[in-house]
Amino acid sequence: MKFFKSEGTKVFAISGLGEVGRNMYCIMHGDELIITDAGVTFPGNELMGVDYIIPDFTFLKQNEKKIKALFITHGHEDHIGAIPFLLQAVNVPYIYTPNQAAGLIRKKLEERNIKYNNLIVYTEKTKVKLKNIQVEFFLTTHSIPDSHGICITTPDGTIVTTGDFKFDFTPIGPMANLHKMAEIGSRGVTLLLSDSTNALNEGMSISESKVDAALSEIFSKHTGRIIIATFASNIYRLKHIVDTCARNNRKIVTFGRSMDTNIEISVQGGYIKNKGIFITPEEAKTLSPDKVCILCTGSQGEPLAALTRIANGSHKQIKLQPDDTVIFSSSAIPGNALSIAKTINKLYLKGVEVYTNTSLSDIHSSGHGNQEELKLMIHLIKPKYFMPFHGEYRMLKKHADLGVMCGIPKENTFVLKNGDVLSINKGIITQENSITANEIYVDGNRIGDVGSAVIKDRKIMASDGIVVVIANIDTTSKELLGKPNITTRGFVLVNENEILLKKLEEISKKAILAKLNSNLNYSEIKNEIIGDLSTYIYTETGRKPIILPVIMNIKKAEKVNA
Amino acid sequence: MKFFKSEGTKVFAISGLGEVGRNMYCIMHGDELIITDAGVTFPGNELMGVDYIIPDFTFLKQNEKKIKALFITHGHEDHIGAIPFLLQAVNVPYIYTPNQAAGLIRKKLEERNIKYNNLIVYTEKTKVKLKNIQVEFFLTTHSIPDSHGICITTPDGTIVTTGDFKFDFTPIGPMANLHKMAEIGSRGVTLLLSDSTNALNEGMSISESKVDAALSEIFSKHTGRIIIATFASNIYRLKHIVDTCARNNRKIVTFGRSMDTNIEISVQGGYIKNKGIFITPEEAKTLSPDKVCILCTGSQGEPLAALTRIANGSHKQIKLQPDDTVIFSSSAIPGNALSIAKTINKLYLKGVEVYTNTSLSDIHSSGHGNQEELKLMIHLIKPKYFMPFHGEYRMLKKHADLGVMCGIPKENTFVLKNGDVLSINKGIITQENSITANEIYVDGNRIGDVGSAVIKDRKIMASDGIVVVIANIDTTSKELLGKPNITTRGFVLVNENEILLKKLEEISKKAILAKLNSNLNYSEIKNEIIGDLSTYIYTETGRKPIILPVIMNIKKAEKVNA
Repeated sequence: MKFFKSEGTKVFAISGLGEVGRNMYCIMHGDELIITDAGVTFPGNELMGVDYIIPDFTFLKQNEKKIKALFITHGHEDHIGAIPFLLQAVNVPYIYTPNQAAGLIRKKLEERNIKYNNLIVYTEKTKVKLKNIQVEFFLTTHSIPDSHGICITTPDGTIVTTGDFKFDFTPIGPMANLHKMAEIGSRGVTLLLSDSTNALNEGMSISESKVDAALSEIFSKHTGRIIIATFASNIYRLKHIVDTCARNNRKIVTFGRSMDTNIEISVQGGYIKNKGIFITPEEAKTLSPDKVCILCTGSQGEPLAALTRIANGSHKQIKLQPDDTVIFSSSAIPGNALSIAKTINKLYLKGVEVYTNTSLSDIHSSGHGNQEELKLMIHLIKPKYFMPFHGEYRMLKKHADLGVMCGIPKENTFVLKNGDVLSINKGIITQENSITANEIYVDGNRIGDVGSAVIKDRKIMASDGIVVVIANIDTTSKELLGKPNITTRGFVLVNENEILLKKLEEISKKAILAKLNSNLNYSEIKNEIIGDLSTYIYTETGRKPIILPVIMNIKKAEKVNA
Repeated sequence: MKFFKSEGTKVFAISGLGEVGRNMYCIMHGDELIITDAGVTFPGNELMGVDYIIPDFTFLKQNEKKIKALFITHGHEDHIGAIPFLLQAVNVPYIYTPNQAAGLIRKKLEERNIKYNNLIVYTEKTKVKLKNIQVEFFLTTHSIPDSHGICITTPDGTIVTTGDFKFDFTPIGPMANLHKMAEIGSRGVTLLLSDSTNALNEGMSISESKVDAALSEIFSKHTGRIIIATFASNIYRLKHIVDTCARNNRKIVTFGRSMDTNIEISVQGGYIKNKGIFITPEEAKTLSPDKVCILCTGSQGEPLAALTRIANGSHKQIKLQPDDTVIFSSSAIPGNALSIAKTINKLYLKGVEVYTNTSLSDIHSSGHGNQEELKLMIHLIKPKYFMPFHGEYRMLKKHADLGVMCGIPKENTFVLKNGDVLSINKGIITQENSITANEIYVDGNRIGDVGSAVIKDRKIMASDGIVVVIANIDTTSKELLGKPNITTRGFVLVNENEILLKKLEEISKKAILAKLNSNLNYSEIKNEIIGDLSTYIYTETGRKPIILPVIMNIKKAEKVNA
């Protein structure tokens, strides 16, 4: 099958554009296709019940034989979360990954019983050579160790993809490799794909060393227990907290599965060295409050997370005490503001002290660079063409504007959609036809069987409930047997609405009788019920529930007793 | 019935504490009870389908004869929205209201066919004298004209309630009456209730005159159509926009019912004078783009609002053009960040220019004062006791801290919950027993018939759908007639899951047959079905839908043909 109009090297996002999440980008030359990252998006409450959105593997299935390798930039879920689904969909000969991400990927595959033996850990010195494509890596700074940018050399030009990055000139981990970026830039780069997450934020992001100072300051002021909620995937933050606790003679109890996983892998990888600082909840009870730090999930107010349950008073092992201090070492992911506020209000009601990044900005720093950092990357890499990635459209658009401010001609910037294809032909880039790139929903453990029809029904039931009307009809005698049964869920309080429900029964009966004629037609009866009931219900209650008529044919019924 | 342990004057919130919305406060002395404000809360997406939350009128019903009057501070929904419900619940002899609010209240009562003849328009000079209680008013600055604070003198002391306010030393409307506040403060105030909405924000809020300048700047730069989304209730902002359009020779088309209502009442009240500037969508089509401004609702990304439909391309009268400019002259109400971002991303995709208060802060100013303004109010009123109101707990708590910083003893500050009662006895305040103050939900046009059971069902159906199992049983012969019918909504895509649904049918059949014994018991059968199906469904799909078994007794069925 021929997918593209022209020859040359193709660059496109399967997912990751117009969204923060689900990063998956492809570079293809001839019969060689390489993929960078394979992440998921957590859709939050908006997509009723959908747990995550994964990339659309249609194109990869159609071009399975061309896939040579998947390259992972770092170990966050929006970059590695879709690997199990990808491996179940297509054959990926090799996955190249940095060490910290390798630990997380192995854990993920184990949990899903997926055997995969071709995980190759790369370092900054690794070079991967395919027939036409060569791949190198450069160290960046991000909120997880071992984050890398990737430099891909093709016969048509060099493509650099940054992964997630910030610049931090006083970092906790190693310094980003400015010199390698500069060297790659000097060689000449055709296309830069760069992280747009914080393109709307002016200036420079806060250095992690400032966060360290802010934490130390809080620790020095409080003698009760200190409870810290943070992103479990922010390994440098966990390292801060461990170091700060060690300096202040506090032991750490952790709550939350993702927290335990990340700490385990960080200890294994040597990023966190002080293993003895972690104690059990039982051990913590024997210590005085000034010797205890509780490190937990729930910084986004997630209903089931540890901090949320602590704030609700429903956590089995931790009850709040008035001299506890709670620190949100995190920022609000858009969409979570209400649930975070709810948790904070409950904490205040319990009388504890609360620190958040709105009350004390240095308590958290993003892992993504602000505008000045994005400009620095553009100047170091000096690309001829620029394609902002990893962001919503408003971020991509702003990032493209920053590119123009840094000297890239406007016509050389590309604000694209998932599936849009760039074609590089000997250093010249044009945009051509698109590939299939839909949103694929995962709900529970099933992929793709929740489509827009299911979501639409969930939305209606979420706001107005459902009214089920069941009627038995004798198809031979064309009689209604008994009264229609009306059962509702999420519609009205049943006990307090007997008159209303009785009325619905009557209307349904009338509707059925009106359509019980010689040419018995089930859908006509159903439509009559839906029409009459919805009009009455809307007038009476102002609501528009799903009306679900079920007509049972009673004469055909066979007796099936065992 | 005796409600309180002690004599003296009682002050309490029926609603409005621990939330932004639903303001309703009571002051009671002997047989005189006065109410300030009667507002609603818009709960957003969180409370599945609930349109608004209203105050709990239980206490007012029990003390109906004592109610002397309702005093309205200003015309926003969180202060007047519950008036129709209040008037339907109890007799309110008089409602005292400022002029702008009076127009909005009359409209509201008309729409609901409620006749009420005792609406009294007050001005700053009005004094209301009851037997024991006297009431006076002072002008404040807020985002709607005619906002007032209220000073209530009782035999036990003076109580001041600010209503909503900011201080703006270059306001668009009249200056707040600093001198009257100072004079009331000098007389001696026992208790201050003050607006906590922006207690978490440092410094001073932006003056509306800066917003005026920012708008003028944007108007001078663009020659395409200008589309402005703002809060329809922000009358001063509407006035700005009208004035700016007049200066720039643009006519205005409005979209959105609340926008039309507010403009109509503001024109009637004389707050907006230039009536001829408003044109119809048809007239706008005959003008060149640089002569047109579109003023619309949708600044919060509400799904059905005008701007949202314009961004979606589904608005019947307005299609976006590349040289359009869209201004969000608004801020994001917490919880709306995602839907606003969605609208902005769609606008960018259409290629139009977008201004928001994150890209240009002067484009919007809140109607509520920041910390320095709150401190100024405390210093002017000089209360002995302080009760922050109008805010979530984190805001009330911070506001109480500001009170302490301004010299109020910590033990004289009260961070309370709805229903908590303060008792003033000759200038001394103590806290005593609480009154009933629940959340009452309004969904569609019905009050209170959506309780927590209904909400819980809606939440489950929102995330996992519903599985309805219908079985006909002959109770005489104890036989199952035909196969159980399985119908689902919001669970899985039905067409692609025939095998799964077939399996559910089999499991249901087995469960029923297992329980069809001599002591036929419907709930036993239902529980068996629920138990077996939920286990299977969770293992197979990872989902937990509502399982709704309906058992029909077929022998008892009477033939009911007409």
